[in-house]
Amino acid sequence: MNIIVIGFGFIGRGVIEAFLRKAERIRRLDEDFRVVGVSDSRGYVYDSEGLDLKRLIGVDELSQYPSGYCRGGSAEDLIEMEGVDLMVEATPTNVVDGEPGLTFMRRALRRGIHVVTSNKGPLVVAFHELKSLAEEGGCQLLFEGTVAGAIPIFSLVRESLQGDEILRISGILNGTTNYILSRMHFEGTSFEIALKEAQERGITERDPSYDVDGIDAACKVVILANALMNRDVRFEDVERTGIRRVTQEAVSLAKRSNFAIKLVGTIDRRIEVAPKLVPINHPLCVHGTLNAVHIEADLAGEITLVGYGAGRETVSAVLNDVLTVLKSEAKKKG
Amino acid sequence: MNIIVIGFGFIGRGVIEAFLRKAERIRRLDEDFRVVGVSDSRGYVYDSEGLDLKRLIGVDELSQYPSGYCRGGSAEDLIEMEGVDLMVEATPTNVVDGEPGLTFMRRALRRGIHVVTSNKGPLVVAFHELKSLAEEGGCQLLFEGTVAGAIPIFSLVRESLQGDEILRISGILNGTTNYILSRMHFEGTSFEIALKEAQERGITERDPSYDVDGIDAACKVVILANALMNRDVRFEDVERTGIRRVTQEAVSLAKRSNFAIKLVGTIDRRIEVAPKLVPINHPLCVHGTLNAVHIEADLAGEITLVGYGAGRETVSAVLNDVLTVLKSEAKKKG
Repeated sequence: MNIIVIGFGFIGRGVIEAFLRKAERIRRLDEDFRVVGVSDSRGYVYDSEGLDLKRLIGVDELSQYPSGYCRGGSAEDLIEMEGVDLMVEATPTNVVDGEPGLTFMRRALRRGIHVVTSNKGPLVVAFHELKSLAEEGGCQLLFEGTVAGAIPIFSLVRESLQGDEILRISGILNGTTNYILSRMHFEGTSFEIALKEAQERGITERDPSYDVDGIDAACKVVILANALMNRDVRFEDVERTGIRRVTQEAVSLAKRSNFAIKLVGTIDRRIEVAPKLVPINHPLCVHGTLNAVHIEADLAGEITLVGYGAGRETVSAVLNDVLTVLKSEAKKKG
Repeated sequence: MNIIVIGFGFIGRGVIEAFLRKAERIRRLDEDFRVVGVSDSRGYVYDSEGLDLKRLIGVDELSQYPSGYCRGGSAEDLIEMEGVDLMVEATPTNVVDGEPGLTFMRRALRRGIHVVTSNKGPLVVAFHELKSLAEEGGCQLLFEGTVAGAIPIFSLVRESLQGDEILRISGILNGTTNYILSRMHFEGTSFEIALKEAQERGITERDPSYDVDGIDAACKVVILANALMNRDVRFEDVERTGIRRVTQEAVSLAKRSNFAIKLVGTIDRRIEVAPKLVPINHPLCVHGTLNAVHIEADLAGEITLVGYGAGRETVSAVLNDVLTVLKSEAKKKG
């Protein structure tokens, strides 16, 4: 298989490193596995015979790769190359219009190229359109890395709860707000101080709105609802309350009654993201930057998954999606 | 596909009910899905055209099924019938010699019949032998229901952590002891009273040794180690300490320091089951009859799964295994 990787940031690089580290595992599924192209926002490198992955992860900038750098070339050029089978899309998330990822995904799927992505934007904006394009193109669209990082929620439901109907989902889906609320719970700090600390530690951006106003969590709720509960939910459908108005008094009061205040995304009759009281002994009540997803299913009852929601662990999810495509292609060949 | 169900107890019946309830889902994968035989310890019913599942779940005893009851017939007769494709094995667990399930599984696998089981015994006694038989027979051996009931730990690792190496597993794998320890933690009762309560509520047997001496948890550790970490572990290799000597004093002391005493199975350098101090804010620290499995993987980091470890939820795991076989057979046919 010929792979292209769009985006050479934290995830793009991490995935290439994982391809190298797990080369043996990959070759057992596909002897002809090659990364033929990698792009960033300024250009791309391409080699139809396969790029040298060791050299790739050694360079700071794509332009430093020894050969074949095309300055000004775009991801779209890579998608149009002959014989591309799978695109790993890892451009930055943009939840307003999903670009540039959305355009790349549409193009790839229309050409019958499998898409694996860790980018929420396009899925929030156009989930059902992209799923239809994948179906028409006879290819897979996998997005394990978009929600709750290393927690394999989508493949779990797809492969491990095949006979179950998912009745309800609730989750702690944003690590930054969980970090802030955990500091308020355990250290008694105010929201402002906990936020400042999160900014200093690089856990959140200088403009923290995306996290603390629940925008990120709402995006994840949209994807979960569409992918796992067959809903037709858009970002505007999520009733959204962030954590800016959670006071230390409220947190302390909750704590004294054995509750913690958590930013919880819920998909039930109502679809919402809001601060909620969670009993401290409930499996969903995880702390620090951890994420958790709680599923209620008709046969399995209640299952909770806990893990890291962001960071290098997300590479596990992207790699698993790539291996899923390789495995199903290997089976087709017999 | 022609299915036989061995065992008509809680799980056997539950699985047949699930086949009925999820008939549409099943037929999408296999139009020719039929349960052709069901056995209990006294006989079997058989119909090569497929049994009437509604009637089956309506009877108290297999012998009351309207036609084809063979008194004194055995599961082995069913396995020898022409055209059987898959056996659901749900006889009672026997961890001493794995019988009668072990004999049934060996026979079935030698005939190239896929095996799905919720019965720990045969896997504890002969894991690698059975896996080899399955490989030689070109068929699948799936056993999701044997460990931690509805928690899909085996399929999660197989399908959702394909690129990961599992470095360490620890888990709360026995609901009865977790119930007892939770009562001691939250209600301040003694071990003896909590045990009596568990017996009265039907959570444990009159002879509670299997649970409280860690035998059940050790069996699950054996299966996890062999299946997920490629070890060659036997029951005798597990260092095992039960919870009989856990005092209320110890539980209270732990609680005051924000720990709970839990019966934890660990697969690391040492393979053991023993009461351990677990920080109350750790994801593994679940209460009541819940089970939890904590995995450390090289890429995904730490993932915890929480769910019900026994009871009707186990049917979800067995059904998922059956659907996994159907799906892979459907793919083979193209």
